[in-house]
This record gives sequence, structure tokens and C-alpha cells, in this order.
Amino acid sequence: MKNLFIRTVIGVILVAIIISATYFGPCSYIILFTLITALCVHEFTTIMNASGQVKINRRIATLAGAYLFLSSALFQSNITTGDIFIPYILIILYLIISELYLKRENPIANWAFTIFSQLYIAVPFALLNTLSFQSTNSPTVVEYNPILPLAVFVFIWVSDSGAYLVGVKFGKNRLFERISPKKSWEGSIGGATFTLIAAFILSLYVPYLTLGQWLILALVVVIFGTWGDLSESLLKRTLGIKDSSYILPGHGGFLDRFDSALMAIPAAVICLYCFTLMA
Amino acid sequence: MKNLFIRTVIGVILVAIIISATYFGPCSYIILFTLITALCVHEFTTIMNASGQVKINRRIATLAGAYLFLSSALFQSNITTGDIFIPYILIILYLIISELYLKRENPIANWAFTIFSQLYIAVPFALLNTLSFQSTNSPTVVEYNPILPLAVFVFIWVSDSGAYLVGVKFGKNRLFERISPKKSWEGSIGGATFTLIAAFILSLYVPYLTLGQWLILALVVVIFGTWGDLSESLLKRTLGIKDSSYILPGHGGFLDRFDSALMAIPAAVICLYCFTLMA
Repeated sequence: MKNLFIRTVIGVILVAIIISATYFGPCSYIILFTLITALCVHEFTTIMNASGQVKINRRIATLAGAYLFLSSALFQSNITTGDIFIPYILIILYLIISELYLKRENPIANWAFTIFSQLYIAVPFALLNTLSFQSTNSPTVVEYNPILPLAVFVFIWVSDSGAYLVGVKFGKNRLFERISPKKSWEGSIGGATFTLIAAFILSLYVPYLTLGQWLILALVVVIFGTWGDLSESLLKRTLGIKDSSYILPGHGGFLDRFDSALMAIPAAVICLYCFTLMA
Repeated sequence: MKNLFIRTVIGVILVAIIISATYFGPCSYIILFTLITALCVHEFTTIMNASGQVKINRRIATLAGAYLFLSSALFQSNITTGDIFIPYILIILYLIISELYLKRENPIANWAFTIFSQLYIAVPFALLNTLSFQSTNSPTVVEYNPILPLAVFVFIWVSDSGAYLVGVKFGKNRLFERISPKKSWEGSIGGATFTLIAAFILSLYVPYLTLGQWLILALVVVIFGTWGDLSESLLKRTLGIKDSSYILPGHGGFLDRFDSALMAIPAAVICLYCFTLMA
């Protein structure tokens, strides 16, 4: 009971921070998500190193992840040109070449998992910037618009909470017992239903997308968010750990909080891209 | 003796194919390097799977690599827009999500090595297209120019051959005994010298870059090419194999032939990018 209370309080605070920082403006949004990207990469590299199968340069990998998010934000907002990515390529080359001198047990695994830490975590967050910064009628002017990133996160949260509530009450058929025994089909379908309702309500107040587009986006976020959640569960199951860290009482680590987003964001980007193609 | 003869013949044929196909025009260039990218990714995933530590979907990973090269060529040549990369993101998402259903032993390693096969091999080759296709005065028109990709490969070949010849004759001090016992500092410096001479000669006939720029590019290609070579040697050493495959008599596999290029290309791209910034 007490645990549920703490969990709820922490959850509300997290949601409040993300919504306010994203809504407030580009600076707070960029600062917050640069931090989140860094924390997630750091957690991932920490649990991978702890597993013993690799020895990743956590500091540099974390720096690289944060740099990728920050630079893609500056690039998307037209503040800088593509030049900003050159240092990133150099950091990656450094991470690979430095392995030659470190005499480590399994350098190939160190290479592979270092790169994976970037693609699995830093790249999805960096893609969030393509939703946050949109080109205007003027080719040079780009405006910050928090609606899409907020919508993606709201959809994920509604889906998670809905799935939890419905699952606890009506959960019978397991969704993916081997990887995540607590998830049920009833819960997932309930979560999806709540999210579609949220998308419908959103369409009434935010005519940024059509009702149909809001519903499709919601469904894409729910489906890929679930896959993202399951992927991180599979990761933890393989490593034999319950949480990615214990930094958030009742929630585990940041990676546990953002696992759904890591797949929902790329899927949402592609989905919205298709909308513009069809328009 | 006979082995050296075969090695030389095969080497000459390979060089002849690459030079002619690249020089002939964009179509033959694109076809050849799409094939080379596919062969290298296939070899990498094959030796990784053979090592027993992962079980990568070789077919899809190879397809993804070939697609990335092909699509980046079409994108760089202005034939298509960035839309062409959407299917690639979907293939990567598929490779990651499908792991949820495959009940494999180490799904994280499968993820990491699948992604690494793309970044280590497909991305460098894809970057070659930024050298092959250059924007003209007209923003819409892009022209195919084989000089830079050819220069990178010629520098690599001159460096390798020069290092071999000088090393055999004067090699004393080992360059990197632990990873590649046969390489000597004398050989490497000899190879670098030959490459700088080649760059000088090139500057006389191809005023595409200034003499200084040709020399800097040659040096960058030699240094990063050596690191690329050493990285692949470290990879094979870790796996306990001598060649990436036996497809090319006396040369091993395609990965053995292009290991230097995998790091020389990104470095050359950054180097040339810096030239344009300074211009």
C-alpha cells in the first residue's frame, strides 16, 4: 500500500516535470531530455558492464548519447548546420579505435554494445526532436511545438496506466508470459482503448492532426510502446535483473520509465512522416 | 611462390574491377558497391554466428546493409528524397522486435551485433556516396565524380603494398605485435611515404584538390586505414580465425580486403568536409 503510494507520487512528479519542461519551451525541453538521454545510456552501460559480458566506456558512451540528443536538437531547430554531428562521428571512431589499445577480453562485444547503447537509446531520443521542431512556411524559420512529443508521452502513460488498471481487474490471458508474465491481453486491449479515448479527446481541443490521424498515432504508439516495454523486459530477464536501477522508488530506473518511448518515438516519427506524405 | 602469384593475380583483378566499375559511371559503381556491402555484411554475420556467441538473422542483416548503401546512393544523387530511408528504419525495428519471438539464448547480443554489422560495414560504405556524388552550382543537379572514392582506394592500396614491400625488407620494430604481429613501423612508414608520393603525383594530374589537401587526405587515409585493418585483425584474433572467409584465394574474404576502407572512408569524409569548411 505504502509502496503504491510512493510509486504514485514519484510517477506524478515525473509526469509533471516532463509535461512542464516540454510545455515551457525549447530550452527546458532540451535540457531535460539531454539529461534523460544521458541517464538512460548510463544505466544501460552500467547494467551491461555489471553483467560481466562487456566492459563499455560508460563516461564516453554517456557523453556521446547526450551529445547526439543535444546536437540533433540544435540541428533540427536550425541553430546549427550538420557540422554539429562531426564531433559525434569522431567520438564513435574514438570509442572503436581506443579498444585496440585496451587489451580487453572481448573487444568485439565492447564495440557492439557501445554502438547498441547509442542506437537503442540516444537515436530514439534524438528522433524526438524531429517532432518537437517543425519547419514553417519560411524555409529558414523553425518553430518549437511541444504538442507532438507531449502527445506521444501522454499516449504511453495512458496506455500503461489503463493496461495496469484493466489488467489487475480483468487480466486472464497472458500477453507474453515468457518475457513479461504480468502483462495480459485484457490489460493491453484496455490500455489501447483508454489511449484511443485520449486521442479522441485530444482531437477535440488540438486540431493539429485530424481525428483519424490522432487515432492512428495513438494506436502506433501503444503497439510499438508495448514492444519497447517487452524488449527492455527481455533485456533485464536475460541479465537476470528486475530493474535497470533503483534511483526511482517504486519505478526502478530511468530505462524502465522510458523503455516504451524508445520504440514508440521512432514509430511515431515514421507514422507522422507518412501523414505528411499523404497530405 | 605459386601462392604469391595467385594472390597477385586476384589482387590485380579486384583492383581492375573496382577502378573500372567506379570510373565507368554511377550505375556500375552503385551495383558493385551494393554487392560489396552485402558480401561484407554477410561475411561478418557469418563469422559472428559461427563464433557461437550470437545468432544474427544473416539474410535480413545483409539485405539491410545492401539497402542502406543503395538508398544512400539514390539519396545522394538526388534521385530520391529522404523517404528512401524509412524502409531501412522499419527493417531495423523488425530485426529488434522479431527477437522477442525467437526465444534465443542471448537476445541482447543478437541485437547489439546486428546493429554493429550495420554501423561497422554498411554505414562506412554508405558514406562513400557523399564522396561520389557532389552538388553543383545548381541546387537540384548533382554530378557523379569518381575521383574521390578512387583516390581513397588507391591510397589504401599503395599504402598496403608499400607497407608490405618495405616491411619485408626493412621490418624490425613491431607496430602492434599483440593484434597483427607481421606489421612493422618501418613498413607502415614506408607505406605512408609511398602514399604521399602517390598523392603528390595525383595533384599534378588532378587539380581537384590542392597539393596540401591531397597530402593531408592521403595521410588521413593511411592512418585510419591502418586502424581499420588492425580493428578487423583484432576481431579475427578474438574469434580465433585467420580469414573472414576463403572466397578470394590468397586474400581471404571480402572483409579482409575492405577492412581498411571501413575506417578510412568515414575519416576521409570528415577530412574533406573540413576542407570545404575552410574554403
